[in-house]
Amino acid sequence: MPAPMSQYPYTEDKTSLLARMRKIEGQAKGIERMIEDNRYCIDIAQQLSALSAATDEVSLLILQSHIEGCVANAIREKRGESHIKELMTVLRKAMRR
Amino acid sequence: MPAPMSQYPYTEDKTSLLARMRKIEGQAKGIERMIEDNRYCIDIAQQLSALSAATDEVSLLILQSHIEGCVANAIREKRGESHIKELMTVLRKAMRR
Amino acid sequence: MPAPMSQYPYTEDKTSLLARMRKIEGQAKGIERMIEDNRYCIDIAQQLSALSAATDEVSLLILQSHIEGCVANAIREKRGESHIKELMTVLRKAMRR
Amino acid sequence: MPAPMSQYPYTEDKTSLLARMRKIEGQAKGIERMIEDNRYCIDIAQQLSALSAATDEVSLLILQSHIEGCVANAIREKRGESHIKELMTVLRKAMRR
Repeated sequence: MPAPMSQYPYTEDKTSLLARMRKIEGQAKGIERMIEDNRYCIDIAQQLSALSAATDEVSLLILQSHIEGCVANAIREKRGESHIKELMTVLRKAMRR
Repeated sequence: MPAPMSQYPYTEDKTSLLARMRKIEGQAKGIERMIEDNRYCIDIAQQLSALSAATDEVSLLILQSHIEGCVANAIREKRGESHIKELMTVLRKAMRR
Repeated sequence: MPAPMSQYPYTEDKTSLLARMRKIEGQAKGIERMIEDNRYCIDIAQQLSALSAATDEVSLLILQSHIEGCVANAIREKRGESHIKELMTVLRKAMRR
Repeated sequence: MPAPMSQYPYTEDKTSLLARMRKIEGQAKGIERMIEDNRYCIDIAQQLSALSAATDEVSLLILQSHIEGCVANAIREKRGESHIKELMTVLRKAMRR
């Protein structure tokens, strides 16, 4: 039985991914404080853009791990088709289409 | 002297905006847990898309308040030009261009 | 009766906007040829990204003209509310939300 | 020597991809006419969004063919790494990050 660690290759960069998520949490808290303090809308909008960009960066890292790991394995084991379909659904969403 | 409440009209929906930001924080924490638990990459990617969408929703609300408030005031007081320039810079970033 | 030229301020940069649209047409034709010639998918994808970016650039210019012109006029004439609502709908779409 | 048809799998849907590109060209021409005719900015902005969406749809189809074809072949032939790196660069651009 494969351990989860080997099953999902994103666990390789788990520490870095977790650090990124904690930073995103911090950004969300910071924006909350800016709203509480009635800070200028444009400054808040810029911080929201930064949060959104940081989130998409994690998505790209997760998707890269997924392609290098799960999708590549599935292709080697000749069951790539459904994995590629699933991947495309997520990419479409990530591209917002 | 204008109170901050009247200065920045997004404060009208401040409670709702703060609730949205707290929800986003919760989403970030949830994704952190998913990564810790080695959850399936595609499920994580979908949650990251949801977080990014929720963030952009707050941006749109903030920008709407900004246009209805600060930008509209500036236009009425014949100093709209610089506000529109500033707004376009943020919109370009929000459109990721 | 206002002439269309004064009605829609984007006509100021009409020549430049038309030139941009003709360039976009040319980009579309170029990509068509690349597909016909069985060119490498990644090269085609990059040209499609460039076409999409050029299109969004025109959107931003049109929206800026619209805000500076129609929306600003409407605000000055105290009928800004519906124009801002309409603008937000388009911005939401442009931000793909 | 591999024939282009087998080399680039997007050629499978070549007719459909070419039809989509011709439609995009037509959309660009239509927007050009709208600008020439001083049509309402919001209507033009909406048509630009549609053109951009149609372009991204072709990108997704090309990328899917690329993953199913070139990337999958490369993975099976144990030279997937560079193809996945290249793919990620394009995805990052397609996600506008």
